Amino acid sequence: MLKLTPIFNQEEPLYCQLYNYIKGEIQNGNILATTKLPSQRSLAKHLHLSRNTVDAAYQQLVAEGYVVSKEREGLYVVELESDYFQTSHVKFDQTQLKQNREQEPADMKYDFSYGDINLKDFPYKIWRKLTMQSLDEEHGHLFFYGDTQGELPLRTYIAKYLYEARGVKCTAEQIVIGAGLQFLTSIACNLIGRNDLFAMEDPGYYRVRYLLQDHGIRMKPIPLDDQGINIASLKNSSVKAVYVTPSHQFPIGTVMPISRRLELLEWAKEEAAYIIEDDYDGEFRYAGKPIPALQGLDSHDRVIYMGSFSKSLIPSIKLSYMVLPRPLIDIYRNNNYYVQTVSRLHQHTLQLFMESGHWERHLNKSRNNYKKRYEALITAIHRIWGDSVNIYGASSGLHLLLEPNNNMSERELIETAKAKGVKVYPTSIFYATPPVNQPAKVLLGFANLAEAEIEKGMELLKIAWFD
Amino acid sequence: MLKLTPIFNQEEPLYCQLYNYIKGEIQNGNILATTKLPSQRSLAKHLHLSRNTVDAAYQQLVAEGYVVSKEREGLYVVELESDYFQTSHVKFDQTQLKQNREQEPADMKYDFSYGDINLKDFPYKIWRKLTMQSLDEEHGHLFFYGDTQGELPLRTYIAKYLYEARGVKCTAEQIVIGAGLQFLTSIACNLIGRNDLFAMEDPGYYRVRYLLQDHGIRMKPIPLDDQGINIASLKNSSVKAVYVTPSHQFPIGTVMPISRRLELLEWAKEEAAYIIEDDYDGEFRYAGKPIPALQGLDSHDRVIYMGSFSKSLIPSIKLSYMVLPRPLIDIYRNNNYYVQTVSRLHQHTLQLFMESGHWERHLNKSRNNYKKRYEALITAIHRIWGDSVNIYGASSGLHLLLEPNNNMSERELIETAKAKGVKVYPTSIFYATPPVNQPAKVLLGFANLAEAEIEKGMELLKIAWFD
Repeated sequence: MLKLTPIFNQEEPLYCQLYNYIKGEIQNGNILATTKLPSQRSLAKHLHLSRNTVDAAYQQLVAEGYVVSKEREGLYVVELESDYFQTSHVKFDQTQLKQNREQEPADMKYDFSYGDINLKDFPYKIWRKLTMQSLDEEHGHLFFYGDTQGELPLRTYIAKYLYEARGVKCTAEQIVIGAGLQFLTSIACNLIGRNDLFAMEDPGYYRVRYLLQDHGIRMKPIPLDDQGINIASLKNSSVKAVYVTPSHQFPIGTVMPISRRLELLEWAKEEAAYIIEDDYDGEFRYAGKPIPALQGLDSHDRVIYMGSFSKSLIPSIKLSYMVLPRPLIDIYRNNNYYVQTVSRLHQHTLQLFMESGHWERHLNKSRNNYKKRYEALITAIHRIWGDSVNIYGASSGLHLLLEPNNNMSERELIETAKAKGVKVYPTSIFYATPPVNQPAKVLLGFANLAEAEIEKGMELLKIAWFD
Repeated sequence: MLKLTPIFNQEEPLYCQLYNYIKGEIQNGNILATTKLPSQRSLAKHLHLSRNTVDAAYQQLVAEGYVVSKEREGLYVVELESDYFQTSHVKFDQTQLKQNREQEPADMKYDFSYGDINLKDFPYKIWRKLTMQSLDEEHGHLFFYGDTQGELPLRTYIAKYLYEARGVKCTAEQIVIGAGLQFLTSIACNLIGRNDLFAMEDPGYYRVRYLLQDHGIRMKPIPLDDQGINIASLKNSSVKAVYVTPSHQFPIGTVMPISRRLELLEWAKEEAAYIIEDDYDGEFRYAGKPIPALQGLDSHDRVIYMGSFSKSLIPSIKLSYMVLPRPLIDIYRNNNYYVQTVSRLHQHTLQLFMESGHWERHLNKSRNNYKKRYEALITAIHRIWGDSVNIYGASSGLHLLLEPNNNMSERELIETAKAKGVKVYPTSIFYATPPVNQPAKVLLGFANLAEAEIEKGMELLKIAWFD
């Protein structure tokens, strides 16, 4: 009889140990292919195990295909390519767990990040309470899958907000909720038709450019002029869709004037093209009222409006939405494979937050707060720099561009700032083709720095760049 | 002077009302292009407003581009395409909010849904407590963006779990967290190379088939045999990647035997092709131990392992992950545009849940619970139906296929069941080309029905299909 001599321990069930032992012997070639395994009865007797234990081990070997059962004959070892069992010795390393806990040191004193927002004034207690309320509702009912398009009550509150605050005209049926604008943009491109040529502002948001490239979508960069995307270039491009940021062009900061908006809509109407309007920080404007969205002017179903709660509420819950024009919502709904990507619990919590008026209060409070920081930044720039720096994209959003008149390259600007403990960001990455022979500009976000930090940062930059 | 006669209310700031009034007059053609606006001083006097109010209204009109400022001359109305302002009369309908609250009536008594899971035994109190703990941690620190690949401590616990429970060999660095397997599959396809030809099991999971189609990825369906995907067909297909479900083929339920797994890995090695292993319900096996993942056998970096907490924990938090082989993790990391799509709060809560041993307990409890339901289903089928029905895909997962020997079409099976209040699901949708001249099979999930409901459902199905 085949020699089987496992050594048993006290920890695992016996059948698992027996199965592992036989599997190992097959894998390392100690039991050869076509070998007949001992009968259950004889192996049970030989190893002083119950027949049930042997039976369970054998069944597992059959289930995984290491042995096959021949009727009325017994179990035979199958032929296997054995080199797969020799080389895979990677073991899970428990020390990883500890190492992971160590934090990177923060070496930058003043980080003018444009992705961050201010969360110090966020109403945690209210959000916490509403999260609890959502968790408790119908004892975890919200843990099941919900509406694939997003929860209908939340979409209704978003439609109401968009109408009142951004001039967007839509019903809840047109809104699709999703985990981030990249994900939604990818759906939008598929709905429009991924074989069409797409246009993008140049410079524009690089993550969207890479996203389109990565999805194999052909894309034409369209230059900007002082009113935003250049319509003559757009007309010459034979594209069927264009991605724009009319409220506050990213990264330059141009507000697209009404005449250009109408030209853009007219172009879309004539070409039966679509406009993807990314209203990424349209809520934040510091002189006067926010500029209404392009979507509200569209009466020919040509605009896909994109919005997000990442900048205005909580970055890490990744709750974004798009408003589809009617032709595209029909295509979306006829396509039954989409699933919802945003946590239903967060959707419900946000619904409660909007329903109870906290959203509006939070937004007003944030706008005032950012206005103070914005004004501190502008004041500091004027006081410290005088005319030795140009500012682009002021009055809106959570960042601006600085162009110091010192002949430094973008890289030099970033490196000299870094040496003083100040982090500023490049603008060249936003260009399809980075401009040459132009003074370098760097990007500064101000949302997550207090007024005093902003001032101190400007003083250090002045030293870095002009001393 | 231009006649401006706004009527003011008490609710909105005066400058907003003035701005809205002038904007409206421009939009509906009452103020013509090139008209000069009155000076601030004269309009302020005329309307009994402060000059600041008029200034703010004028500034907003300039910002939005309705008027332009000519130096030393004043403000002039710009020329605009006016038909855009005539037709857009969609208003937000407040009655939507109420209508949305009404629920659809549940007309199905026994829904054998294969998407649902049992949440009745979910440890709510613990999850609630850990959610609170996450919310409180560093006062909302988790609201900021985290690691784009997913939180490192969570990835480390997932690596540990995968090694111990599924035989997957990886480090935390190879794991990418994302909102759902569709989203991750889309990234995986881009990493592999979207211009390559992909293969999929036929039948296979239709949402993945549609996803690939929608992303413009060319795809070849590969037939199954009794061991899973047919290797000869795969070899003839000249594909560079294949999507498989070896633990429990979806929807047929075949467990791929070890010999076929090795053939598949050998094919991938020789062709330098990739295998996407969707281990969608690999945790749940009712006879013996779970079958270890294909990934654990791979020593040539050919397998992308996909897993999800949707079936095993909470569907609606959409927390999934993939394990990338080293060549692809390098491509992933060099590509700096990816953002994280899963709520950081949920990631942290899950980390605490795994850290404290609750995950393992929950999984064991779930497996026992589903085993009872599975056994109730199998027992009921044998008792009520005898030999008049064939069962496919038993012993694993949360669904099985029934093939009643009554010559009904799939549609007849579903409709007659529905007439008795029992919902069963089609299998034809999973085929690239639905089979002809084969007895119809329907799909029954059993995860969210109690034992008594399962039995009652089977009795009703017997009446529906055989009386």
